[in-house]
Amino acid sequence: MIIDKLYKAVEEKGHVCLGLDTDISYIPEGFLKSFESIEEAVFNFNKEIIDETFDHVACYKPQIAYYEALGIEGLKAYSRTLKYIKEKGGISIGDIKRGDIAKTAEMYAKAHFQGEFEADFITLSPYMGMDTIEPFLDYIKNHEKGVFVLVRTSNKGAEDIQYIESKGSRRIYNIVGEKIKSLGEEVKGNCGYSSIGAVVGCTHVDEGKELRQSLDSTFFLIPGYGAQGGKAEDVALYLNQGNGGIVNSSRGILLAYKNKEQGEKYFAKYAKEETIRMKEEIAEAISKLS
Amino acid sequence: MIIDKLYKAVEEKGHVCLGLDTDISYIPEGFLKSFESIEEAVFNFNKEIIDETFDHVACYKPQIAYYEALGIEGLKAYSRTLKYIKEKGGISIGDIKRGDIAKTAEMYAKAHFQGEFEADFITLSPYMGMDTIEPFLDYIKNHEKGVFVLVRTSNKGAEDIQYIESKGSRRIYNIVGEKIKSLGEEVKGNCGYSSIGAVVGCTHVDEGKELRQSLDSTFFLIPGYGAQGGKAEDVALYLNQGNGGIVNSSRGILLAYKNKEQGEKYFAKYAKEETIRMKEEIAEAISKLS
Repeated sequence: MIIDKLYKAVEEKGHVCLGLDTDISYIPEGFLKSFESIEEAVFNFNKEIIDETFDHVACYKPQIAYYEALGIEGLKAYSRTLKYIKEKGGISIGDIKRGDIAKTAEMYAKAHFQGEFEADFITLSPYMGMDTIEPFLDYIKNHEKGVFVLVRTSNKGAEDIQYIESKGSRRIYNIVGEKIKSLGEEVKGNCGYSSIGAVVGCTHVDEGKELRQSLDSTFFLIPGYGAQGGKAEDVALYLNQGNGGIVNSSRGILLAYKNKEQGEKYFAKYAKEETIRMKEEIAEAISKLS
Repeated sequence: MIIDKLYKAVEEKGHVCLGLDTDISYIPEGFLKSFESIEEAVFNFNKEIIDETFDHVACYKPQIAYYEALGIEGLKAYSRTLKYIKEKGGISIGDIKRGDIAKTAEMYAKAHFQGEFEADFITLSPYMGMDTIEPFLDYIKNHEKGVFVLVRTSNKGAEDIQYIESKGSRRIYNIVGEKIKSLGEEVKGNCGYSSIGAVVGCTHVDEGKELRQSLDSTFFLIPGYGAQGGKAEDVALYLNQGNGGIVNSSRGILLAYKNKEQGEKYFAKYAKEETIRMKEEIAEAISKLS
């Protein structure tokens, strides 16, 4: 089960999930200009970041929207980034948040679990129901793949739908969480977690603690740290004795070089420094809890 | 407003939205082999279908999953298909069902409302909330673009989340529908409908009628006709005196050539025949209602 590999990576390297949301404006100008195409510039920016941070990152999560925005060239860079992570023995999450009916879901599985855009994990959106998640099960069971399904996201608008209370006084995100947990029972790894994980933002601590208790075998992909207001001590509450989740940071790491001495030249070095700082901050918050 | 163009297309050409879910296995073998690349084969298959059906189709809806499954080549065919529809003066819906937070949503808008993957409309998933729809508003207001947001889908699993009843005894899809309607008020066209439309499947007639009444200014993209069990008389109930919605058919049209005389040779001709049959069937069902 792929989740065992991720669990082990967290043990060895810490909780950082590095979000490769590589906007063209994030790439230092001199670096950008040294390449003949956008594809080369984006891929090589990612490559330098990956090389420098590799020992301190549990997994990399390219957000496909940033690559789609650059058209075919961007998607080539997306593909090369995923291949490069694989080559190095790293773990990737394709942050694609797809969700569609049976035959279409099969096509998404084909697109993102094999071939040019192959990732170890992908993110999925559950609005259309569980039959949009099920087509991915075969890949999870038999091809070392995993998914993270949106449960409680970190944005303000999460309240619009996820927070609606049902007649049974349970919020939509709780109901989705339980369906995910139940579907995940049959794809549990040796580590005790399922290869069907959940996206749970760390910006609402109370709900997070409750979700951590109820979804005890569900691995969390946790957005919201840093720019969105989530702190290390909040994040620690979403973990089970130190494992069971990864914490995403994108801009916080990719743009760590801003306003630093020779920042543009040493962007990857500053990314590494910020990764280590974040990793240690989370580790400390965990140790204080236990 | 782009919705006025779509409204007029329905008046002139009927209600068919042709879903270009171009699986490689749908392309007749002889046709497939006559091209040097998958990109050429897929694009040219679509082109023949578009040319033949153009006078009887309100809009074309390529489902991006099928193209992503073919990798970069597939996405090139997706891009060329959208450009070809635009060149001919047709209307396109990029069926991408994206949904993500602010900055990421902006990237999706950039990706699918301009540049290589530009479509007139795109589909969106609302699970993460209204702040994931709002970044598209500028394009809707100022750049003749529109969206269709998932409200009540046609699949079995739709019941898992969309059918949950809230404390106020209202189903999630009703709540989503109203939020869409409210957000759409400021982007209404002269035709009376908003450029923020809703995806409402025609497989649950009772709910559909209720939605049609409550969302009186919301244009519907209606899946579920044909293979999924929706009939023309059902579809008619989702329309307001004959307009206010388009009805998708994908495989029903693309594969109309199967088991036909010289089907593989004349696949586009059979697609046209099926399009006209469907269009007339819906028109007749509407006339019987009024």
